[in-house]
Amino acid sequence: MTTESRPVVTAFNWVPEFARGLVRDLRVRWAFEEIGRPYDTQLFGAANPRPEDYVQWQPFDQVPAFADGELKFFETGAILLYLGEQDERLLPPEGQPRWNAISWLFAALNSVEPVIQRIVSYDIFHKDQPWAPDAREASLGLCQQKLKRVTDALGESEWLAGPFSVADIAMVTVLNNLRHTELVAEHPALSAYHKRGIERPAYQRALAAQLADFESQPAA
Amino acid sequence: MTTESRPVVTAFNWVPEFARGLVRDLRVRWAFEEIGRPYDTQLFGAANPRPEDYVQWQPFDQVPAFADGELKFFETGAILLYLGEQDERLLPPEGQPRWNAISWLFAALNSVEPVIQRIVSYDIFHKDQPWAPDAREASLGLCQQKLKRVTDALGESEWLAGPFSVADIAMVTVLNNLRHTELVAEHPALSAYHKRGIERPAYQRALAAQLADFESQPAA
Repeated sequence: MTTESRPVVTAFNWVPEFARGLVRDLRVRWAFEEIGRPYDTQLFGAANPRPEDYVQWQPFDQVPAFADGELKFFETGAILLYLGEQDERLLPPEGQPRWNAISWLFAALNSVEPVIQRIVSYDIFHKDQPWAPDAREASLGLCQQKLKRVTDALGESEWLAGPFSVADIAMVTVLNNLRHTELVAEHPALSAYHKRGIERPAYQRALAAQLADFESQPAA
Repeated sequence: MTTESRPVVTAFNWVPEFARGLVRDLRVRWAFEEIGRPYDTQLFGAANPRPEDYVQWQPFDQVPAFADGELKFFETGAILLYLGEQDERLLPPEGQPRWNAISWLFAALNSVEPVIQRIVSYDIFHKDQPWAPDAREASLGLCQQKLKRVTDALGESEWLAGPFSVADIAMVTVLNNLRHTELVAEHPALSAYHKRGIERPAYQRALAAQLADFESQPAA
């Protein structure tokens, strides 16, 4: 007589235009959509304080946080790994294929995203600062080098670690952050990879769901 | 008649003074030392090109890469997770304790390390650039906020996720990158946590092993 409870992801009910499609709950929504698993959202205002006890769940006061039955935890990478362990369509279950995908999951988040976020911060958050162009220039080479490394590793493969996996969910959404630049387009194979990712129906459904939640209340 | 092969970690045989104790193979060595598992190193010169096929193993041409029997993969976070899955002293095997530790492992690498690395880059890599002080100032608040969040989450606990785990190996070594600043010292509980980490005998053995390998050949 009990209904199975759905997993819960926290997300925002409004963010500024530049952030739409970039908030990290998209990564978790995408994973759910790939395996057709229904989920619930718990929405907060990005510009409003979260409930005081939210940091018990998400210590950095960010989204997404995640709950599944009794389990509650945080960090997009951890959530993607968790969902991957429950479904082979997101993560090979063992051996070299599993560790290839996990390596690329961490690589997206620790080797690639930080250099991309620096470019984003100079272009968007600090764009009016007189020092931002010089700081950007000093970071650009490293960002371009990382993108080239990913491109080279991808080679002629469709996805980073053999079959599509949470590593691709992470990398494609990390690359999304450069949508205001031509940096991904400098590498046609990487650009094609990114396009393959965002054209997946599951990505499109996840994005639509995130954007729909931003319409759920008037702009703050 | 076969001898069990030891896992292999790649590392450098020389790095400049400022990087000693910070190269990421330290994180893997520390994990091995915690569980008393012998390992071999394969050393490269940081300033010399690695063998051309090394990027097949470590696509970013960095260290560490990792091999254990037939398995070969990369990314410190992935290696720590792998070792954690083999030994409960590094990672609780299941349920909430496991996901707490994995959340904090990703948090160290994706929520904390990137903001710390920005401070490091302004202080060390770009220190002679006229724009570096302004860029540092603009990043400082976010770094301090993240450190406060970690401190608050730690509370009066000894380690981030209950028992000592790979999450602490990641976070303590991430905090090492601020050793040239007083930023960790601004939070006495975080500073005490960091001290607890680096005073562990396993950390000390790992550090000694990394530093010894830097003495294995004359400075490049």
